[in-house]
Amino acid sequence: MRTPPGISASDFSAALQKCANVIGQSWVFSSDEDVDLYRDAYSPVRGLVDERVPSAALAPASVEEVQSLVRIANEYRIPLYPVSTGRNLTYGGTAPVYNGSVVLDLKRMNRILEINEAGAYCMVEPGVSYFDLYRYIHAHKLKLRIDPPDPGWGSPTGNSLEHGVGRGPYRDHFRAHCGLEVVLGNGDLLRTGMGALPGSGSLWQRFRYGYGPYIDGIFSSSNFGIVTKFGIHLLPEPELSRVFDISISRYEDLDDFVQEFAQLFDVGVLNSISQMGMPLLSMQIPEARALLESPGGGSSTQWNELRDRLGKPPWQITQLNCQGPAKIVEAQYDYIVDRLSRFSGFKVESRRDYGPSPDPDQVPGQDKCALGIPSLVIFGGVGMGRGHGHLDFSPAYPMTGEAVRKINQLLQQGYREADMPWRGWTGGNTWFDKTFTMITGFGLENDSEQNRKAVAAFRHLMQLLGANGFAEYRTHPLFQDLLLEQYSFNEHALRRFHETVKDAIDPQGILAAGRAGIWPKHLRDKREGRL
Amino acid sequence: MRTPPGISASDFSAALQKCANVIGQSWVFSSDEDVDLYRDAYSPVRGLVDERVPSAALAPASVEEVQSLVRIANEYRIPLYPVSTGRNLTYGGTAPVYNGSVVLDLKRMNRILEINEAGAYCMVEPGVSYFDLYRYIHAHKLKLRIDPPDPGWGSPTGNSLEHGVGRGPYRDHFRAHCGLEVVLGNGDLLRTGMGALPGSGSLWQRFRYGYGPYIDGIFSSSNFGIVTKFGIHLLPEPELSRVFDISISRYEDLDDFVQEFAQLFDVGVLNSISQMGMPLLSMQIPEARALLESPGGGSSTQWNELRDRLGKPPWQITQLNCQGPAKIVEAQYDYIVDRLSRFSGFKVESRRDYGPSPDPDQVPGQDKCALGIPSLVIFGGVGMGRGHGHLDFSPAYPMTGEAVRKINQLLQQGYREADMPWRGWTGGNTWFDKTFTMITGFGLENDSEQNRKAVAAFRHLMQLLGANGFAEYRTHPLFQDLLLEQYSFNEHALRRFHETVKDAIDPQGILAAGRAGIWPKHLRDKREGRL
Repeated sequence: MRTPPGISASDFSAALQKCANVIGQSWVFSSDEDVDLYRDAYSPVRGLVDERVPSAALAPASVEEVQSLVRIANEYRIPLYPVSTGRNLTYGGTAPVYNGSVVLDLKRMNRILEINEAGAYCMVEPGVSYFDLYRYIHAHKLKLRIDPPDPGWGSPTGNSLEHGVGRGPYRDHFRAHCGLEVVLGNGDLLRTGMGALPGSGSLWQRFRYGYGPYIDGIFSSSNFGIVTKFGIHLLPEPELSRVFDISISRYEDLDDFVQEFAQLFDVGVLNSISQMGMPLLSMQIPEARALLESPGGGSSTQWNELRDRLGKPPWQITQLNCQGPAKIVEAQYDYIVDRLSRFSGFKVESRRDYGPSPDPDQVPGQDKCALGIPSLVIFGGVGMGRGHGHLDFSPAYPMTGEAVRKINQLLQQGYREADMPWRGWTGGNTWFDKTFTMITGFGLENDSEQNRKAVAAFRHLMQLLGANGFAEYRTHPLFQDLLLEQYSFNEHALRRFHETVKDAIDPQGILAAGRAGIWPKHLRDKREGRL
Repeated sequence: MRTPPGISASDFSAALQKCANVIGQSWVFSSDEDVDLYRDAYSPVRGLVDERVPSAALAPASVEEVQSLVRIANEYRIPLYPVSTGRNLTYGGTAPVYNGSVVLDLKRMNRILEINEAGAYCMVEPGVSYFDLYRYIHAHKLKLRIDPPDPGWGSPTGNSLEHGVGRGPYRDHFRAHCGLEVVLGNGDLLRTGMGALPGSGSLWQRFRYGYGPYIDGIFSSSNFGIVTKFGIHLLPEPELSRVFDISISRYEDLDDFVQEFAQLFDVGVLNSISQMGMPLLSMQIPEARALLESPGGGSSTQWNELRDRLGKPPWQITQLNCQGPAKIVEAQYDYIVDRLSRFSGFKVESRRDYGPSPDPDQVPGQDKCALGIPSLVIFGGVGMGRGHGHLDFSPAYPMTGEAVRKINQLLQQGYREADMPWRGWTGGNTWFDKTFTMITGFGLENDSEQNRKAVAAFRHLMQLLGANGFAEYRTHPLFQDLLLEQYSFNEHALRRFHETVKDAIDPQGILAAGRAGIWPKHLRDKREGRL
């Protein structure tokens, strides 16, 4: 039996026995065979000394059981690592940040506690997946649309808390939440917003602020509590959803094009997720590769000539989507087309219209997510087919042409310096207001030498981009200390603040030690230093 | 010279001298004449023992000066009460919650630090008012619209942090913010979100989350820090703004009407502020008064007969507004009219169209706010002309007909029991997603007996509504303890959490003791008990 660091085998056995008394022996996992399932399937250090492996896992079925387990953990000072459905591949899966932590697996807490069609909201437990929610809504013929992320197997709770995203108007999942119930590190139970007002009923899932400090945000991307109830705003099933792809033809229009694209959001015409891509500027095309690697990276004239030869546009935006009443969607679409048609070579490459509740079997894989249909199609090769796993580098940057150029130039440099294969220019995803994000990174193999190189390259990208004001907003546990290290204003005032709060609300440091770079007082020496 | 409680006159003088050394003698206010200006002009207990009066005021001009003053306050343990432009009338103005606190007046920190037209955002200091921002934008002919609250003299910083609202798509002002700089209770300086990443530039005002726990919310409606920089998202000047009022004629359609109204927001067609009113159900109309006071409060038939006699509709919505590209606004308007025209007697009572940057002199007072033009017109009698001040009761409740009926019935009962004049049914304002709020309450006079009665009536309303699951989301300092007391789930877990955080991040309890019902450890006995 593995044990958490500093805990004797006999104490650990005693603690697990107490846990078994609460949740039943069959929901305490301590055999290597069982615990291995909680290892990070995409870990770049799998099997190496740096891999973080849980010592056991516990699967409670209720809030009361969670509280009891947290109290037992406090008694024995056992580090717990809560997960909801435990997906989050490439960002660590179910594996803890602090090696030897006990995974608190909330998958059995999978009740949809309320779903209100007229009010368009729901409240779920953390083990409810997007598939569960979708199936419930369709089984009950509710006129509601959910907003799943690309792989639909995760939970609204975990996805939202880790700043996951979908493709509809509620794309920024944390921002679409309303109301939390949280078990704190000492086992105490808290409800935020109107949940603290006895008898307020559905207002908990409607009005987010309640009275006084609005604390919900501190439970996102953190280790400050275990969320056991989670409210979400939903979209009434739209009359029309139009998904479309566009492109323009002149290389030199990048800045103007991104500016127009951003304005479409700012004036309220777009509010969903799309990707800006650069099909011509791909390292997979030998001539493009040569031009990208030439001094200066190619002039407008050279790129436009290449475009003419290859018939590929320099800039495109795919998966634009407008959802709502048909006539308004049409007006939005017309406005977008009208506004962008000033760009040379502008064209709508493809356009797909869908009515309310489209039959999932009739919707092509690429559009399922935008239409609120959870799927795993993204694992079938659409952009993910990289070896045995992947290590994603996820920076956020301003939605401007200047930032797109700058970050791509830095990435080109960084990949070259790290001797890793770069795929060429990436525009950005419109996951958050006024911001582009991208996912780049490295495939992983069953080859520890190759993976070691990927980890070193990842650190190199972090360092190079960080020195230029670009950083990730989420990352694999292996890099969480280093990422928070980059957010260093005023001698790490933000980290010092997080540590002060952590020590106050979880004084024994039980919950998810090290997550998001936040270590409890007695483990602060575990923190990794500079890059 | 007044002194803060527990501070000797000599210590206080020494402390103020140190403050004068930092900010200059002329920005230290300690004469009664100067300090009186910081009293709450609308206090219902003005001149009585319960009034909370500052002992002095300090007006720093920079972040560094704020930090120095906070450090001096820590040295002498002097309670500070930060205000931005110090409006917030009816919710306490500049007067502290803890009697004798020193007001930290940030009005001199009035620089617009950045305003970005292409990106549609700005960053301001706390002393910048909506008027300042409006004037700057118009002087520089920027194609941007701000979203002022009804009285435009306050600051975006203070208004947003106290959950103030405007009338455009960014109506929920706190939700439209992005990025904070905060001086903590120990004088430390923190930047949230991307502000913590050196060199990230404008991403601070674009991307709200940064990395790790999203802490901004805890600085709203709280006493956890002094916000010294505040980022805000702005609206590109809309091509067309259409403001309109509608009504329907059947009393019994309330529930359906509110449901349709709510759905217009949920499907994304409305996103701005309007008021649902009940012109027929007014206590000012003798026949309506008689019907409201009859057993059962009048049947549908009786109300519809009264409507026919008086020519007043039972339900109306005023100040609906759609803003954006002209063709989309027209499609939205057509959709709204089409969807609501199923209601008997539906009519558009008035409709006003405005182009971009309307001339303020040509815009009637009632529409100024919706068009981003700050004004003080609301003080000129539009709904505010109540005596020498007013005491506002501001509950939040679900956007449903059922909740509208329930809260009005309770208010009718509460006003009657408190022997206070009630004005009749109120629908609600659409200030926040899926939620109605209202402002009701009492006029105040130069008559302490009358005002004492108003305070007692206020407490009675709090108690009666609270027992039925309704509560305010903001309130006058006189009632802040009592309001937080109502948010009592699990033996006040939320308040215990706030207190734990407060003690950790402001260990000497320097900042705004008592604000939002949160008292520092050494003053916790000041908290008022049950109603």
